[in-house]
Amino acid sequence: MSNKTGGPVKVAFQGANGAFSEEAARKLLDCEIETLACRSFEETFSGVSSGAADCVVAPIENSLAGSVHKSYDLLQEHDLQIIGELNLRIVHNLIAAKGVELSDVRRVYSHPVALAQCERFLASLSRVEALPAYDTAGSVKMVLETARPDEAAIAGAEAAKVYGGVILAEGIEDNAQNYTRFLLLTRTARIAAIKVRPTSGPRKTSIVFRVANRPGALFKSLAAFALRDIDLSKIESRPIEGRPWEYSFYLDLIGDSNDPRVERSLSHLEELAESVRVLGCYTADDNCS
Amino acid sequence: MSNKTGGPVKVAFQGANGAFSEEAARKLLDCEIETLACRSFEETFSGVSSGAADCVVAPIENSLAGSVHKSYDLLQEHDLQIIGELNLRIVHNLIAAKGVELSDVRRVYSHPVALAQCERFLASLSRVEALPAYDTAGSVKMVLETARPDEAAIAGAEAAKVYGGVILAEGIEDNAQNYTRFLLLTRTARIAAIKVRPTSGPRKTSIVFRVANRPGALFKSLAAFALRDIDLSKIESRPIEGRPWEYSFYLDLIGDSNDPRVERSLSHLEELAESVRVLGCYTADDNCS
Repeated sequence: MSNKTGGPVKVAFQGANGAFSEEAARKLLDCEIETLACRSFEETFSGVSSGAADCVVAPIENSLAGSVHKSYDLLQEHDLQIIGELNLRIVHNLIAAKGVELSDVRRVYSHPVALAQCERFLASLSRVEALPAYDTAGSVKMVLETARPDEAAIAGAEAAKVYGGVILAEGIEDNAQNYTRFLLLTRTARIAAIKVRPTSGPRKTSIVFRVANRPGALFKSLAAFALRDIDLSKIESRPIEGRPWEYSFYLDLIGDSNDPRVERSLSHLEELAESVRVLGCYTADDNCS
Repeated sequence: MSNKTGGPVKVAFQGANGAFSEEAARKLLDCEIETLACRSFEETFSGVSSGAADCVVAPIENSLAGSVHKSYDLLQEHDLQIIGELNLRIVHNLIAAKGVELSDVRRVYSHPVALAQCERFLASLSRVEALPAYDTAGSVKMVLETARPDEAAIAGAEAAKVYGGVILAEGIEDNAQNYTRFLLLTRTARIAAIKVRPTSGPRKTSIVFRVANRPGALFKSLAAFALRDIDLSKIESRPIEGRPWEYSFYLDLIGDSNDPRVERSLSHLEELAESVRVLGCYTADDNCS
């Protein structure tokens, strides 16, 4: 592994260079890093599982758009541990090639979530079509490569820097309470080797569990935490493949998995659930929370 | 309104003609209908709120991909009532213009969820690029309009009929346990005028509520149902705009909202929650459940 020999830590992220995930990687890690741009979320997790990368930075939820389904599913499919969390303020910008004026723009490319978050701004421009792309920074790359005089893309400021674009309008998101929560994950064997930048929040533990499909099953599961006054910060349900209308539940709870109270709540949950898995224990990011 | 004068019931749906939502509309309603194809989910709900349409058919969750966030958000933004439910088996097909052979195809268009559900099939074709589009039937329409000899689209069989395409491969989804649950919604004043096709399931009530952000709040809310042995079939959390990491909870419970036991559970929930709203009471669809 690269950092065994003192080299940079290899961090996989989804998207093109200049993506918000890459910015999150730089803020999450407290050491020299090398970022690996991947086309899909699967590639980022597989890269870490196979050892091609040391860790992965994955968006798990946005304060406006909600949970990132794909990331939740990959938490369960791969045997990685969450070791850090970051809440990144998302600032969108309209980016184009040098010489393009705001009034020239007729087509704007970006990830569908970014386009939706800039709806009011886009509606304020006349005769502009919003077109979906795989990711924000990737759409900047494409727009600058083709350099058509009437095209622009929406992405973070870093993407303009990376591809030499000009910011035509900054902070164009409709709602400023726009944060994406990113998770940092690695293989259990690598935890000690990855230096996470300290954050100021409490310890947090993330788990996933399944319960039998019977009345009161979820309620009883939550009792394991409520009866011990353990605070839950997030619950998410995801479908179980091949079992229509049955779900896995993901929970984030405030507390360290080694705290006896948390340990007892997890043992209690194991009595009640079909399966329980701890996805990681890490220091929460208090920014904006 | 059209059906006051004996005309067809106007049903709004998202997507192009031939979409799965249009098929769901025909199966959900037990009367003559006129379907209104809308580009966005917002348009479908707004159309019913404004009176331009009588009702809307909206996908709420898929058994593999999970919840449709946009539909959940629109349930809360509009004052409509859920009056019916349908579980539609989703069968994907590769559709192209006449004369195109499977081996000619180099680019396949569809909605990203449909592309993801046919990943194994697409990987089995050589040198094929998967490209995202706004919807399934709309991508068939586009591919048949441009009629390039190396392009195809993924959609339901109905889209091939509507646009005169040829099915190159049918049932190409990776997993046959592929169902989308659709909801039928209308304005309160129109409920009596809309004839819903009978289904065989039990009565179901859908609600949305918010609780104060304190330990045990969700647990106590679920107690309102668990203490009365009321079964929950779905829980979904969605972010509250402008309040990062706070959530609205959507619940589907088995029982009629006029059943005294359900009425008492909802009164109990009102004591515990900041807000509670009943989104509708309808007969569940037992197909595949």
